Amino acid sequence: MINVSDGAAYAPKGKPNAVVKPGEFVFAALGLYHGHIYGMCNGLIEAGGILKSYYDPDPAYRAAFARQFPGAKAAASEDEILGDKEIILVAGATKTNERCALGLKVMAAGKDYFTDKAPLTTLEQLAEAREAVKRTGKKYAVYYSERIHVESAVFAGDLVEQGAIGRVVQVIGFGPHRLGKSVRDGGNRPEWFFVKKDYGGILCDIGSHNVEQILYYTGAKDGTVVKSQIANYAHPQYPELDDFGDCQIVLDNNASGYFRVDWFTPDGLQMWGDGRLFILGTEGYIEQRKYMNFGEKGSGGGHVLLANGKEETHYHVEGKVGYPFFGRLILDCLNRTETAMTQDHAFKAAELSLIAQRDAVVLERK
Amino acid sequence: MINVSDGAAYAPKGKPNAVVKPGEFVFAALGLYHGHIYGMCNGLIEAGGILKSYYDPDPAYRAAFARQFPGAKAAASEDEILGDKEIILVAGATKTNERCALGLKVMAAGKDYFTDKAPLTTLEQLAEAREAVKRTGKKYAVYYSERIHVESAVFAGDLVEQGAIGRVVQVIGFGPHRLGKSVRDGGNRPEWFFVKKDYGGILCDIGSHNVEQILYYTGAKDGTVVKSQIANYAHPQYPELDDFGDCQIVLDNNASGYFRVDWFTPDGLQMWGDGRLFILGTEGYIEQRKYMNFGEKGSGGGHVLLANGKEETHYHVEGKVGYPFFGRLILDCLNRTETAMTQDHAFKAAELSLIAQRDAVVLERK
Repeated sequence: MINVSDGAAYAPKGKPNAVVKPGEFVFAALGLYHGHIYGMCNGLIEAGGILKSYYDPDPAYRAAFARQFPGAKAAASEDEILGDKEIILVAGATKTNERCALGLKVMAAGKDYFTDKAPLTTLEQLAEAREAVKRTGKKYAVYYSERIHVESAVFAGDLVEQGAIGRVVQVIGFGPHRLGKSVRDGGNRPEWFFVKKDYGGILCDIGSHNVEQILYYTGAKDGTVVKSQIANYAHPQYPELDDFGDCQIVLDNNASGYFRVDWFTPDGLQMWGDGRLFILGTEGYIEQRKYMNFGEKGSGGGHVLLANGKEETHYHVEGKVGYPFFGRLILDCLNRTETAMTQDHAFKAAELSLIAQRDAVVLERK
Repeated sequence: MINVSDGAAYAPKGKPNAVVKPGEFVFAALGLYHGHIYGMCNGLIEAGGILKSYYDPDPAYRAAFARQFPGAKAAASEDEILGDKEIILVAGATKTNERCALGLKVMAAGKDYFTDKAPLTTLEQLAEAREAVKRTGKKYAVYYSERIHVESAVFAGDLVEQGAIGRVVQVIGFGPHRLGKSVRDGGNRPEWFFVKKDYGGILCDIGSHNVEQILYYTGAKDGTVVKSQIANYAHPQYPELDDFGDCQIVLDNNASGYFRVDWFTPDGLQMWGDGRLFILGTEGYIEQRKYMNFGEKGSGGGHVLLANGKEETHYHVEGKVGYPFFGRLILDCLNRTETAMTQDHAFKAAELSLIAQRDAVVLERK
């Protein structure tokens, strides 16, 4: 179920690879506003999780979800899910600015939380989330899909870990997306995508994917946003949309990162976005072409290009790598470990995204 | 004579396309330190120029040049060339920090000057050069080869001019280069490449290509360096080398630009550098893969990828576009016009490169 035209509906399916026995890991979906919930549930189910139930106040979202996951039960309310002792984790994709409030409720109910990115929209929410994690001992995991649910990203991580390009000195990410139109204008995008307090701004929203990747591939624990910019260059009909954003980060190990995100994917492109990531190392470099190989029709995703002292290779890893994050997350919930992604890392990516958004210079249209 | 392993020896040959009759445009080469002088002379000769004579104080450089251009005369001195009334233009590729002094002499001798990039290394030199141009009425033209001597760059410029991607909102450039070793260490790079006052720093040197392209493709006349960084991450044996640099520029039309330059091209790569340029427009985007198509052996250069509302196309323009800069420069010299590149543009690219270098934050190795 790969939707090629709309990034919000991108929900990859991988090879089932259960890490638990049936019934050992039961979860629910709460908040179905963003299509990412499908990818989140797919990933957990493929790793052996049982999707028991789901809820959203909007009946249209519930109906769409029921068609995709007919085996799951339509809960009557949020409280039914929060009170269900069998449910270990709640996956949620509410409006971005409501994700933290939901997470606080989920954790207070004694469950782990797995939210779509961005995990929250303000530094105040982040402080609350950090405090709640500390207090409850529960997880506030984040679906940074552009790394954890993209095979090229997983494979590139393995290459870096194996030392294929030496020490990483810089990461550059491009996160272009197709905008489409709002529901109001006859399109598919809910109105809240265009309301800044709801989606948090482009650097908070799709920028968070890139901040996470910069932290991950450089192996850094922290970083400083040294420059960020946003603009609405060409969408006056959506005055609160940032259609462009970019950001420079210096990491605590003095590697650096740069990324650009935008809503300018043109209609002639085969895919909703030509996502790229370039990892520069002291002994080589890696390029990811995540969802397509630009200029090659029907190219599929999963392109990883590597050059180092020994080779120059185009790896096409689609269908070959899978998504180990989900099985690790399930085991982390059961064993109280942090093998999928540390809590500090997930929150740090959010923190730097929020700082980038807050401090961004606005480039006015001229 | 494409040298694939060493960018300094990259001297493309295009289709001859003379804009003048034999003898109408006579030029000389003075200062043969950088291999770019070969590309500069090739370009002018293909456009109908006559290379009359050449000189460099170093006999080794003279001998190599003589092998390449056996029809040109070895002048006995710099003064012989400067005093030759037939010579309209002097092409030079001395050490970067000596390029301005040479230019001042050339212009004072009543000739136009065509220098390798970077055209100079300090803002003081730039002020002198600007003053001399104003005073003498002569040209201080610059060989920003990564645009004017690269077919993908020429073709991309045509696409932008034709409105293929709407209004340009951002340009991102990658200028990776293979370092090799210094002569002292048994390699080919002259010592001055590793002495900062001589080469000016990475943002001044190879960065100037990218600043020029950012100005050109955004159609801007001016810009502000909003962030720049340099590092020596992995070459402690060359303490004055910047092996990494990056820079963000905001243009006077509020488009923006980012570039990274580095000396990390690994030995396994088919080419001395995987130069790229990404032009984001309101209605599409263009990627240039200038010298190679990463991962495709023997791919050749001249790859331009375009997506807009109508199409997604991989153009391979190698051998099809040529290099119109040189013919225009010859006619500009004869007609006192500015069709190849304005003087303001050439100096502005240098100015912003120098400011980027001067203001760069140094990322220390950790």
